[in-house]
Amino acid sequence: MNEEHKKNDCLFYNDPESLLLESGQIINGHDIAYKTYGTLNSKKDNAILICHALSGDQYVASSHPITKKEGWWERMVGKDKPIDTSRFFVICINVLGGCMGSTGPASINPETNKVFAVNFPIITIADMVKAQVRLIDNLEIEKLVSVIGGSMGGMQALEWAASYPERLKSAIPIATSSRHTAQNIAFHELGRQAIMADVNWNSGNYKDKNTNPSKGLSIARMTAHVTYLSEASLTKKFGRKLQDKTDLGFGFDADFQIESYLRHQGHTFVDRFDANSYLYITRAMDYFDLEKTHKKSLTEIYANTNLKFLIVSFTGDWLYPTSENLMIVRALSAGGVDVSFVEIDSDKGHDAFLLDEPEFDVCLDGFLKSL
Amino acid sequence: MNEEHKKNDCLFYNDPESLLLESGQIINGHDIAYKTYGTLNSKKDNAILICHALSGDQYVASSHPITKKEGWWERMVGKDKPIDTSRFFVICINVLGGCMGSTGPASINPETNKVFAVNFPIITIADMVKAQVRLIDNLEIEKLVSVIGGSMGGMQALEWAASYPERLKSAIPIATSSRHTAQNIAFHELGRQAIMADVNWNSGNYKDKNTNPSKGLSIARMTAHVTYLSEASLTKKFGRKLQDKTDLGFGFDADFQIESYLRHQGHTFVDRFDANSYLYITRAMDYFDLEKTHKKSLTEIYANTNLKFLIVSFTGDWLYPTSENLMIVRALSAGGVDVSFVEIDSDKGHDAFLLDEPEFDVCLDGFLKSL
Repeated sequence: MNEEHKKNDCLFYNDPESLLLESGQIINGHDIAYKTYGTLNSKKDNAILICHALSGDQYVASSHPITKKEGWWERMVGKDKPIDTSRFFVICINVLGGCMGSTGPASINPETNKVFAVNFPIITIADMVKAQVRLIDNLEIEKLVSVIGGSMGGMQALEWAASYPERLKSAIPIATSSRHTAQNIAFHELGRQAIMADVNWNSGNYKDKNTNPSKGLSIARMTAHVTYLSEASLTKKFGRKLQDKTDLGFGFDADFQIESYLRHQGHTFVDRFDANSYLYITRAMDYFDLEKTHKKSLTEIYANTNLKFLIVSFTGDWLYPTSENLMIVRALSAGGVDVSFVEIDSDKGHDAFLLDEPEFDVCLDGFLKSL
Repeated sequence: MNEEHKKNDCLFYNDPESLLLESGQIINGHDIAYKTYGTLNSKKDNAILICHALSGDQYVASSHPITKKEGWWERMVGKDKPIDTSRFFVICINVLGGCMGSTGPASINPETNKVFAVNFPIITIADMVKAQVRLIDNLEIEKLVSVIGGSMGGMQALEWAASYPERLKSAIPIATSSRHTAQNIAFHELGRQAIMADVNWNSGNYKDKNTNPSKGLSIARMTAHVTYLSEASLTKKFGRKLQDKTDLGFGFDADFQIESYLRHQGHTFVDRFDANSYLYITRAMDYFDLEKTHKKSLTEIYANTNLKFLIVSFTGDWLYPTSENLMIVRALSAGGVDVSFVEIDSDKGHDAFLLDEPEFDVCLDGFLKSL
């Protein structure tokens, strides 16, 4: 989607400097697409960075140019909302490797004039953050009020606080982990295999061949989506309810509402997401392991940092359960770091951080007001 | 695999009678492939039926003709084992719709002389059991000592007890449910979509076209496999350990052991399982809903049956958790039925019933000895 996307309503930063990646590879110049909300004050000390999750993008509080749906966190970001745009200057950046304007596998490789595809270098969460820091530098913002994000966004917040603690007053990692578990790697691997098994993937060169591995990407999305919901929410929302019929169809069409819902989630995703980006971003998440990257224990990584943390988990989240979040809380406490932790009672699964959870809003609001 | 399989070491019953299915469709004559262990006594009152799960077959206690691996429950079934073949005559039947010799979508439709493929009628758990009853009739066994099964095998045990209570002394449904939940339907739907998305599936007619949707079936198996393991067992067994390397590969090859393990699970499955059978059997499980089929509450279904139940669940099983099994226990208790329940402490996930859990062996052994 990258090239065509440039006409869309967002800002671009063309970073001319080469970017040394964790893999040792180098990207020679790249684009960063981002959106801002609110106004940067004259002291440039009211900026908040919101980091998006795997399937998110920079349209956090404004209509999506492709789906035309409202921003993915519009309930949280805006005037008089917890992340109050009348107080804060909010920045949201499409991650490096993404497909909504930032340089990624769907971009043209300036050295070959061809789409990168799988010749794009593997990027990590630390690489994404490194590119974000360059933009924040360019905006001449010395210190962010906070870096906030859920899921992969939370990983970025953790990496910001680990590598650039002097650039932040606070970090709010939500429903996340300091390293991806085997189960999470497993679910991502299913998605990648589904994409790469699609005959239209063509070893990643589908743009050249004018094909699209939409079936594979759709299955990857469906797989992920099941993991974002709790068993309780699936039962409450769908149970065994049938879709537009009064009895079983005795066939392989979608009989159950849950089947029809998942198929819909899969189909609509392919219109707005690039399959290779999905491979790269899931890989970045799987590679995420703060202790390994920083060659220190979690406690040592954060010891003596002055920034304040708010860690949030949700009871119904089995993908990034409270136990994973508490590992971070314990390490921060052991390092003498100022950390607040809240577990929100919710049956909405991992997706809870994106959904209507008033108790969560209150916590975020209170924490930001205390800064 | 069906036609070629007939040379394999198992027994066949060619049922000449037509079989009226739950869908209203009819199968005019079908084969049932099965294995027996131990000896049927002269009174024919020492027979136990073991029902296999989704990916199982009749080779419960003897080497598999394709994989050459030992039987899938060899630790439980044999001389001096809990299901003691020096006492019991053990029967294990490949389910109707299966691919190890019983009539299924890979069989030749005698009316067209072509492979059934997706023209095979949709079958249900009740249909599988109906076909099993016919074989038990043919073996002139009036009453089974027990019907035992885990997962889909447990569904069959529940259906036997619901529809043919006079034919059983006891039923042992293990790690199962009285109806498939939305989350379970969702995971099956992912597998089916992966198979049907494979270009080699060819609308089900892959045998005619000499293709095989092995990539799709492999992904379906990988997906199911993740759900069979607990997060704890994945962490313990794999964690973030790398496969045959000392550092990340920065690519899409299998870096992590969990990836390599899942790929292996997927690849080996396609040698022994038919993709269309996978569609049909998962569908049968999704359709399973005892109360709907019997148009009664679970309590009413079993009220006043004289058979004894042993229900077993495992703490680490999130696919068929204890809560699902307890629903059955409560209904049986409310109906005044003789029911024992045991929850085995295990971190092995749903697969625990197939694995080394000595406490489980003791329970099964004790229950069978009490009969």
